[in-house]
Amino acid sequence: MKRAIVLLSGGLDSTVILALALAQGRECYALSFDYGQRHRIELTHASKIATYYQVKHCIVQIDSRVFKSSSLVSDLAVPKNRSKEDIGSGKTPNTYVPARNTLFLAYAMGQAEILDAQEIYLGANALDAPSYPDCTLSYIQAFQQVLNVGTKQAAEGNAPQLLTPLIHWDKAEIIRQGIALDVPMHMTFSCYDPTPQQKPCGQCDACILRAHGFVAAKG
Amino acid sequence: MKRAIVLLSGGLDSTVILALALAQGRECYALSFDYGQRHRIELTHASKIATYYQVKHCIVQIDSRVFKSSSLVSDLAVPKNRSKEDIGSGKTPNTYVPARNTLFLAYAMGQAEILDAQEIYLGANALDAPSYPDCTLSYIQAFQQVLNVGTKQAAEGNAPQLLTPLIHWDKAEIIRQGIALDVPMHMTFSCYDPTPQQKPCGQCDACILRAHGFVAAKG
Repeated sequence: MKRAIVLLSGGLDSTVILALALAQGRECYALSFDYGQRHRIELTHASKIATYYQVKHCIVQIDSRVFKSSSLVSDLAVPKNRSKEDIGSGKTPNTYVPARNTLFLAYAMGQAEILDAQEIYLGANALDAPSYPDCTLSYIQAFQQVLNVGTKQAAEGNAPQLLTPLIHWDKAEIIRQGIALDVPMHMTFSCYDPTPQQKPCGQCDACILRAHGFVAAKG
Repeated sequence: MKRAIVLLSGGLDSTVILALALAQGRECYALSFDYGQRHRIELTHASKIATYYQVKHCIVQIDSRVFKSSSLVSDLAVPKNRSKEDIGSGKTPNTYVPARNTLFLAYAMGQAEILDAQEIYLGANALDAPSYPDCTLSYIQAFQQVLNVGTKQAAEGNAPQLLTPLIHWDKAEIIRQGIALDVPMHMTFSCYDPTPQQKPCGQCDACILRAHGFVAAKG
């Protein structure tokens, strides 16, 4: 049975890739990251999802001082009520976290080597790429090359593959796939800026894309 | 004045690259990492060296569970009294830490973006490459490509350069360069497995290469 490291934020996309990896018979290890994000509640959702799927789960503590320019870890206001077109305009919003995926993937790379995992799953998708440079296909290819040469595992010819099965999908397609895989969508959490009661704000980019996605998936 | 992030372990190599970067007129920001290493005393040396050179210095806390297969962060015995030939044999010793440089460079990448630094300095050298896959030229080139595409800074055409000025040098050449640059060599610390009094053990690979280097540099 192939082993896989799955980066699990607790959101919709990463939960669908976990379900996809499991459906393909992988033995999955879920990794989440506590980087002082204002939507830290997502980690509780990630834990519940890992328990639901009975996969091992580790929440890695990140020293987030490196991220301080992002609204996700500072007092900067999270953009609200943007149109789907604005969100997809290609301008990087302040919810971007510098080098976040590189840091997450570096941890996944170390974990893959320790567990001798052959695959790393990342939920980057078609909606992320225009706004987030570390969700593009060229970024994924570049990090694959780091995996190909950067570890003892690689030197022994067993470099793990970085898999991004959602890379060409929009939210509606991801949701349809999630429904097909019987993903417990109600357990996922996507909001960047939860209310004091830890409920989704309904106005940030993540909430808006999620809502649009559910409407489109039914269409 | 160009800004540079310098990965500073507190050892000889990274202190020489800090001196090199400063000699080239760079405004340097030193980054060190506390990953639960048994030679954590190196961080005290790094701090003193940063103070000596009057550069800003940040010690990043790393969640080191990912590293647990290495003798540097576990109870595994550090190899001792190996010959210089054994050390350079190309076999990866248990002092290797999975994905360590990728993790360090991911932090440096985020920091470079926040500070708009144009360069990242890493002390990888000719003695590291045979044993440590994340110190090879092909690894450096692969991570450069991640820098070229993975950040907003890169998307704006300002990807930082990953510089490894020691990559073709052995310890004697590094020491000679250090002497030429008036580096306070006595402030540096190289040992992997310090005594309870936090003195160098004199027997680990790092101690042996350092000792050989000083002898060869005088020759």
